[in-house]
Amino acid sequence: MADFAARAEALDRTDPLAGFRSRFILPDGVIYLDGNSLGLMQHSVASRLARTASKEWAEGVIRSWGGAGWFDLPMTAGDRIAPLIGVGRGEVAVGDSTSANLFKCLAAALHLRPGRSVILAEGDNFPTDTYIASGLAGLVERAELRFLEPGEALSDRIGAETAVVLMSHVDYRTAEIRDMAAVNAAAHAAGALVLWDLSHSTGAVPVDLVAADADMAVGCTYKYLNGGPGAPAFAWIHSRFYPEVRQPLSGWMGHLAPFGFERDYAAAPGARRLVCGTPQILSLAALDEALAIWDDVDLAALFEKGRRMTAFFIEVVETECRDLGLQLAVPRDCDRRGSHVSFRHASGFEIMQALASEGVIGDFRAPDTMRFGFAPLYLTFTEVYQAAVRLRDILVERRWDAPAFRKRTVVT
Amino acid sequence: MADFAARAEALDRTDPLAGFRSRFILPDGVIYLDGNSLGLMQHSVASRLARTASKEWAEGVIRSWGGAGWFDLPMTAGDRIAPLIGVGRGEVAVGDSTSANLFKCLAAALHLRPGRSVILAEGDNFPTDTYIASGLAGLVERAELRFLEPGEALSDRIGAETAVVLMSHVDYRTAEIRDMAAVNAAAHAAGALVLWDLSHSTGAVPVDLVAADADMAVGCTYKYLNGGPGAPAFAWIHSRFYPEVRQPLSGWMGHLAPFGFERDYAAAPGARRLVCGTPQILSLAALDEALAIWDDVDLAALFEKGRRMTAFFIEVVETECRDLGLQLAVPRDCDRRGSHVSFRHASGFEIMQALASEGVIGDFRAPDTMRFGFAPLYLTFTEVYQAAVRLRDILVERRWDAPAFRKRTVVT
Repeated sequence: MADFAARAEALDRTDPLAGFRSRFILPDGVIYLDGNSLGLMQHSVASRLARTASKEWAEGVIRSWGGAGWFDLPMTAGDRIAPLIGVGRGEVAVGDSTSANLFKCLAAALHLRPGRSVILAEGDNFPTDTYIASGLAGLVERAELRFLEPGEALSDRIGAETAVVLMSHVDYRTAEIRDMAAVNAAAHAAGALVLWDLSHSTGAVPVDLVAADADMAVGCTYKYLNGGPGAPAFAWIHSRFYPEVRQPLSGWMGHLAPFGFERDYAAAPGARRLVCGTPQILSLAALDEALAIWDDVDLAALFEKGRRMTAFFIEVVETECRDLGLQLAVPRDCDRRGSHVSFRHASGFEIMQALASEGVIGDFRAPDTMRFGFAPLYLTFTEVYQAAVRLRDILVERRWDAPAFRKRTVVT
Repeated sequence: MADFAARAEALDRTDPLAGFRSRFILPDGVIYLDGNSLGLMQHSVASRLARTASKEWAEGVIRSWGGAGWFDLPMTAGDRIAPLIGVGRGEVAVGDSTSANLFKCLAAALHLRPGRSVILAEGDNFPTDTYIASGLAGLVERAELRFLEPGEALSDRIGAETAVVLMSHVDYRTAEIRDMAAVNAAAHAAGALVLWDLSHSTGAVPVDLVAADADMAVGCTYKYLNGGPGAPAFAWIHSRFYPEVRQPLSGWMGHLAPFGFERDYAAAPGARRLVCGTPQILSLAALDEALAIWDDVDLAALFEKGRRMTAFFIEVVETECRDLGLQLAVPRDCDRRGSHVSFRHASGFEIMQALASEGVIGDFRAPDTMRFGFAPLYLTFTEVYQAAVRLRDILVERRWDAPAFRKRTVVT
């Protein structure tokens, strides 16, 4: 115990990222291990939002589309994300939800592989990925959705009829990092494309889409990118596919000449065509501001801190909570693990509720996964240690076994 | 002149809506005739946004999905819009852009009319409507987009192959109000559905979807509803079509049990299934707050003020700017006219730029339409009068004929 506490303190003392914590508003009395679900807010975001509303909207009114850079914001925000995923400026479009961007990219993939019909999607992917794939398959007659079940080898399922493989880079429950380059190579060998969901990767683990020869990717910005609740998502398609890229959510903001008011659609060059309708500027401005921090972050140090935090949490929990019914549900190999840790427990829901009631916020993923996210920009090792101790006490004393913790309410 | 000024003053003195003006932040030194493009911000929205960011997000963090009502916000905001369009509580879903909602509804219409292939869309509708229809038609093999050209009678073009007619209720350039009940009846007689775009109607002219026997509608919220730049749009489909309604942007937030993390999509009951991915909460909260004002508004008085303002503007401009090259491009009949006035002029772009440089903000719609919007909640008749005088002076002295006003920049 004292040993872990001292180690945590030592790790905090030498943490090269310690200075970033003060840029965030830390919720009172909370150890926040849910930054992989909704990241914390930075102080600068409050002032940016106030400026966007009270200066740009209220005073600048319609003039701000040009004067405050609103029109360009989907791409300028995208330029801030590009270095985190290994792609170039002008290649990332920000806007809409991850779900809508999945739809755009899957449809674009079908168009780029006209003789093929199958969307091969991980069956245990985050549900919105499978839901959107099924929405598209239900709409497009030639499209068929097939599931790659856990344990099945991609090479056994991919074939000449596969248009696109849909996969998460980091699994939202098991935190497993997929070998992106290997999957891309296998898919390409079969003539198929791969669409990567980077929601649990971006800002948490190394992503180099171009080096991995990736085709297309989408991702969420409200997790490790701290963009705010429901912050607009991003989409990227490799430049080799332009100008053939066609996506069906062809709204006016992705048009070549949006203010020409022409009847017929003509796509803007490059990634701008991934923009659909008028972007939700308040949410987008908050995200843009939140992303500014990445200019200052040493990514190698960030990823290393993430690996150390997850490893430390696993070590403390497995030591302190031995024989208390927890089952580690993430890889032990740091290099195969994203920045969250899951444990399975039959009463996982109640335990997470009890933890939250005592100020440790993680989340629960049905049916039995307790999930703890470690955002290296604002967490300390001491918090990680304290959370593990709190978990132990709750388990030992069965404090989770109370009616109040059985009530199912909305948790994302 | 003096006559018009005195009349304006008298109209302002007796304006039953005069009290609402003080709820808005009025841009300094500006007469704002562009509320049909981006409505003004209310004071209360600034505090709501600050609360949503600094309390709900920063302090409440993930707990706010339930605790602050974020999860329900697409429907609670929808309930505020419902009375403005003549539908019931729980029937309107808010989220995504108008463009994305057009896509959802058009696809739903194709599903509801399985034996039919044609989307019949007004050729001179707002471009995003035609762009989205063409995006869907390009994706779905059986779908075909045909344009209804200006002047063509719907009855001449609709037929047994028509699945859905896509039309704006108020034309974005000509302000013409379509006879919604008549169009619906004609379409229904041919077995087709109608999707109405209410972007230039909601909060500006009477809309009663149920009374007009409408099938489905979408609309924008950043115009007369003052929701903020790119504020999330709304969608409605008549309850008679549920539970058969299927829309392909089937993200997890429209699922029956979003937190069950099931592999297969099952639609939530009713309009909730029109919600796609995680909603952009900052923009959505600002909209929700902006909509609160409608609880206090006498809609009959609002519509009457809109009619009077547009009529007064036309009268003053046609009197003061006689023989200066302006051509009225909206109906003279108040009951057939929305809440904006358009004049055509070969140098319309430059004239609008010159007007803006002198503090009168309207907008321009290619190729030659000068558009002036009249938002009854915050405009005075005196402003309407002053804007007309400013326009006259600019035309008489040809102040628009300067290099600075020829530069084309982004204007929405």
